[in-house]
Amino acid sequence: MHTISQYQEFLADYLQSQYETKEPRNLYEPIHYILDLGGKRMRPVLTLMSAEIFGADYKNALPAALAVEVFHNFSLVHDDIMDDAPLRRGNETVHEKWNINTGILSGDAMLILAYQYFEQYEPVIFRDLAKLFSKTALEVCEGQQWDVDFEERTDVTLEEYLKMIQYKTAVLVAAAMKMGAIIAETSAENANLIYDFGLNLGLAFQLQDDYLDAFGNPETFGKQVGGDIIENKKTYLYLKAVAFSAEKEAQELRDLFAVQLEDNTDKIERVKELFNASGASKATQDAIQDYTFKAFQMLDQLNVSADKKAMLKAFGENLMGRKV
Amino acid sequence: MHTISQYQEFLADYLQSQYETKEPRNLYEPIHYILDLGGKRMRPVLTLMSAEIFGADYKNALPAALAVEVFHNFSLVHDDIMDDAPLRRGNETVHEKWNINTGILSGDAMLILAYQYFEQYEPVIFRDLAKLFSKTALEVCEGQQWDVDFEERTDVTLEEYLKMIQYKTAVLVAAAMKMGAIIAETSAENANLIYDFGLNLGLAFQLQDDYLDAFGNPETFGKQVGGDIIENKKTYLYLKAVAFSAEKEAQELRDLFAVQLEDNTDKIERVKELFNASGASKATQDAIQDYTFKAFQMLDQLNVSADKKAMLKAFGENLMGRKV
Repeated sequence: MHTISQYQEFLADYLQSQYETKEPRNLYEPIHYILDLGGKRMRPVLTLMSAEIFGADYKNALPAALAVEVFHNFSLVHDDIMDDAPLRRGNETVHEKWNINTGILSGDAMLILAYQYFEQYEPVIFRDLAKLFSKTALEVCEGQQWDVDFEERTDVTLEEYLKMIQYKTAVLVAAAMKMGAIIAETSAENANLIYDFGLNLGLAFQLQDDYLDAFGNPETFGKQVGGDIIENKKTYLYLKAVAFSAEKEAQELRDLFAVQLEDNTDKIERVKELFNASGASKATQDAIQDYTFKAFQMLDQLNVSADKKAMLKAFGENLMGRKV
Repeated sequence: MHTISQYQEFLADYLQSQYETKEPRNLYEPIHYILDLGGKRMRPVLTLMSAEIFGADYKNALPAALAVEVFHNFSLVHDDIMDDAPLRRGNETVHEKWNINTGILSGDAMLILAYQYFEQYEPVIFRDLAKLFSKTALEVCEGQQWDVDFEERTDVTLEEYLKMIQYKTAVLVAAAMKMGAIIAETSAENANLIYDFGLNLGLAFQLQDDYLDAFGNPETFGKQVGGDIIENKKTYLYLKAVAFSAEKEAQELRDLFAVQLEDNTDKIERVKELFNASGASKATQDAIQDYTFKAFQMLDQLNVSADKKAMLKAFGENLMGRKV
């Protein structure tokens, strides 16, 4: 087994080895640009780790890991267009640096390139990977559509919100891990357990992201703290706060989440008060704990050695222990 | 074997059988909308025909044929955004009827759905189809990028133009036919010959489209006659006309293709005169003949019965005989 930072290094090297100066440059340059912006590469790291957990050489998992990373970046490029986002990881987004058409077309090419990485596997594994990938990719699109739809709706339920973040975020984490299992040709049981481990950890991760968006440390969070509140996002925190509050406070929250302000300082302050006073903050932290615990439960049933389970648990604890 | 209109009917029935009311509706409705706009469905018809030519039941080719059709429509949805096109087949384009974000996201989902149709084949055929599909899809993206790039360039060569239309248009016709060959599990030789048949026919078809765009009958062409001239598209006709003209006329053409006018009547008239006088019209018709002839030459080497070759030839002659 290797460490996270080793996996990150393997991925960076493999990514560089894949670059060739392909024409037309206006199609491929934006692809290299967004991939080179980096990020933690959590999803492909999980593919490599999962492959090794189930007894395969991480090298065999590099193409699938890169497919996951390229797909993830495809979704960022297209989402950034839809969200009209100027910045990604502190740099200009693709459609800002080039234009919207380039963002659309380079994104399309990335989705296809992701599939091409699976061609390095023999037919049965190729089909299993591509099937899982297509199912997951479609769910990510559905999750994104729900996210868009929810912006215009005022009646979103907690269940709907959880399904949205499951599709938009968690399934890719889950699939990334299952791909490692497929490549290692472990049992279907192990493959499904590691998928569920990833799914629950992905949900916990996204709920924590929601929580930190309101209560994180501005110095270390990496995104604008209060961003979800400014954009009136009906996150878990908000939905719980409305559900737990008396009618007067619930209405105040609804009103606050129906306006767009120039200066959001007071709004953010008041919303955070209501999140805390209603018990929504506590409920969100409990939910994060619950999903993390559910993820760890999957490990108990996994048919791998105790030290490998410990490693996955350590990864999960490290991921969820971030206090940024 | 069946007739074209029978194939079209099989496809329409199969397409309807695939529809289910899937959520989120805002993602799937635009997909059904664009697919229901119809068109001649030439590409998937070729997949079915090719499968039967090589001895398979057309029914086995329906999923791959639909993959080709869904992919083709994906490319139309995204291209229409990039071209800011208000109409497609006489109806509102997806991004006009909904919005750009819906066009991007529904298009993405269509690209993924296309891959999913291949899952109905056993692993080796699945991989062969998906590999051919990815290669082709990426070439279509590259062709589209070149098309975009060429708009801003004044030094496009004839070779570059031919490569662009090959990638943007002809490879999908070629791949559609090769998919039928793959499903029928015919020899690699046959599969490559039918690919080259489709490629040359696709090139002939696109050059004819360029020709008819200038010289077609406005009553039957279906698109605005002179559209390429209005948009200053450096087509085969234009590039040949500049190459064949004396410097004075060549410069006149360059100047005409550097302006955007309110009223294009005189410009279209004059450009057509120059296309004819320079010999570019004749050269384009010759090129159409050449590519059609090359396509038919592939048939000679094909290892199928004479009546099947005759059928493919009849299809080609019918396609290229359109005088609209």
